[in-house]
Amino acid sequence: MATLALVGTGLIGGSAAWAMRRAGVFERVIACDLSLASAQKACEIGFADLATTSVEEAVRQADAVMVAVPVLAMGKVFETIARFLRPGTLITDVGSSRGSVIAAAQKAFGGHVTHYVPLHPIAGGEMPGIEYASPDLFQGCRTILTPHEKMDSAARDFWVSAWEKAGSRIVTMTPAEHDEIFAYVSHLPHVLAYTLVDAMAKTSDASRKFSLVGAGFRDFTRIAASSPAMWRDICIANRDALLKTLGEFEAELALVRKCIETGNTEELTEIFERASAARRTVGVRKKTAELAQEKQPQQTPDKNA
Amino acid sequence: MATLALVGTGLIGGSAAWAMRRAGVFERVIACDLSLASAQKACEIGFADLATTSVEEAVRQADAVMVAVPVLAMGKVFETIARFLRPGTLITDVGSSRGSVIAAAQKAFGGHVTHYVPLHPIAGGEMPGIEYASPDLFQGCRTILTPHEKMDSAARDFWVSAWEKAGSRIVTMTPAEHDEIFAYVSHLPHVLAYTLVDAMAKTSDASRKFSLVGAGFRDFTRIAASSPAMWRDICIANRDALLKTLGEFEAELALVRKCIETGNTEELTEIFERASAARRTVGVRKKTAELAQEKQPQQTPDKNA
Repeated sequence: MATLALVGTGLIGGSAAWAMRRAGVFERVIACDLSLASAQKACEIGFADLATTSVEEAVRQADAVMVAVPVLAMGKVFETIARFLRPGTLITDVGSSRGSVIAAAQKAFGGHVTHYVPLHPIAGGEMPGIEYASPDLFQGCRTILTPHEKMDSAARDFWVSAWEKAGSRIVTMTPAEHDEIFAYVSHLPHVLAYTLVDAMAKTSDASRKFSLVGAGFRDFTRIAASSPAMWRDICIANRDALLKTLGEFEAELALVRKCIETGNTEELTEIFERASAARRTVGVRKKTAELAQEKQPQQTPDKNA
Repeated sequence: MATLALVGTGLIGGSAAWAMRRAGVFERVIACDLSLASAQKACEIGFADLATTSVEEAVRQADAVMVAVPVLAMGKVFETIARFLRPGTLITDVGSSRGSVIAAAQKAFGGHVTHYVPLHPIAGGEMPGIEYASPDLFQGCRTILTPHEKMDSAARDFWVSAWEKAGSRIVTMTPAEHDEIFAYVSHLPHVLAYTLVDAMAKTSDASRKFSLVGAGFRDFTRIAASSPAMWRDICIANRDALLKTLGEFEAELALVRKCIETGNTEELTEIFERASAARRTVGVRKKTAELAQEKQPQQTPDKNA
């Protein structure tokens, strides 16, 4: 394969294009972003060859297009892309909600939707933006494939292989299943972290509080430093699943509140013990660097990946 | 100083006694716990000389006593300790709530309360228990001193110096201020993490969800692996401040919910941007190992600490 057009040069798109370029999936990368400075950063880092703010310029030259913009912007970007596609151009995106993005793709791409493969890499960093991008970001992570009816198998195989070469393992599920699961394991935690930090920021002695946080608070709220625009879009795009999940959380929180109010130590112990046992099944987070080291021998692209 | 009686050999107490012994604050440590195995582990590690389940045996021989049990158990432990104190025995505790613990100490120790110094080290680990203890746990952390009226200045200076030699910096505030601030920066995050994990554990496909979590969920819920008994006690002991804080969080969450329901992207953006900016003032978490390395030159106890 030859040329990738990366539309949206943030942390995830930048890291993905960098990892795939390094693994030999693409020979050439065109970085396209509303912010020319951000696109140019991809050239400075060295994994992109051309920076542009024009989707037309990027897509016309591309054999493959990766869309990595906030999910509510995807519909509009898909419609622009659709006007400049060549017959065989492959398309993917990296969005964190699937149902609404796939519907937007079906609407925008028409018959060409056969060449569109929805994939969501489960990775992120403490800080958003291409300046925090890393070609190792996806090492040991999962990338979720949510096939749609008209998806071409050759297009699927291409993008699946590209993500495997970027270091991730593919897990397949339906878009609805994805949206339900990630409302719980990703979207709701972000909402809660943003909510706690903003509630605390509104208190009168907020700066004193922030100066006294420990490691627990730091880890708990790390995701509240993420891109506000990206997460606002995910909340709206995955609204139905997120509100259902939020409702379940609120019911559980009401239960915990009642235990604290009434001094019901027995039930509080049960809840905390169940949660603690469940959490310990997840294990600790491995650092990107550790995972990269584990993968060290695989310097050349893996033909069987 | 000579002998420390450590009552409660968990992660915090074990790490504190280990750090202070290593820094030369104590020549001898008696490890006392309801679980003899846990106390014996302190001897196996090497920072304790004697393991016992008898508070009497531990306290009778001690020049200083550190109580490191769950906060609701402190009152009863204080009362037992009080029966075996010698005239000059110094006492401290490491509890995460201050108002109720100080009241329990005043009640239990009577006139001897002058020798009791309430200090709360702001540190913790992914897993509870002495098997995860480390003498570096407090490097670069803060320890909160919340003086009470009758506190003797020599007792205060002794424990302040002990905690500084263990690697931490002292911050002084009133017990009420402590309980309000730590309800926000520590107790509420724990409640939310336990609540989210238990809500998720109750769903039908929970194990699938847990198998698909990413780094964000791991960090957000790390504190839900903490000791259930310890955190249950903190929630009850600091009930008033925690419920006030929880109320503020619930009001903010209702606001966020409404933005998502009505698609109010403007207000949602404002909230997320404010939270994101506030969170970025906190900085990233340093690993214990990194902090220990920074401190490396200080191998011998620092006389000026």
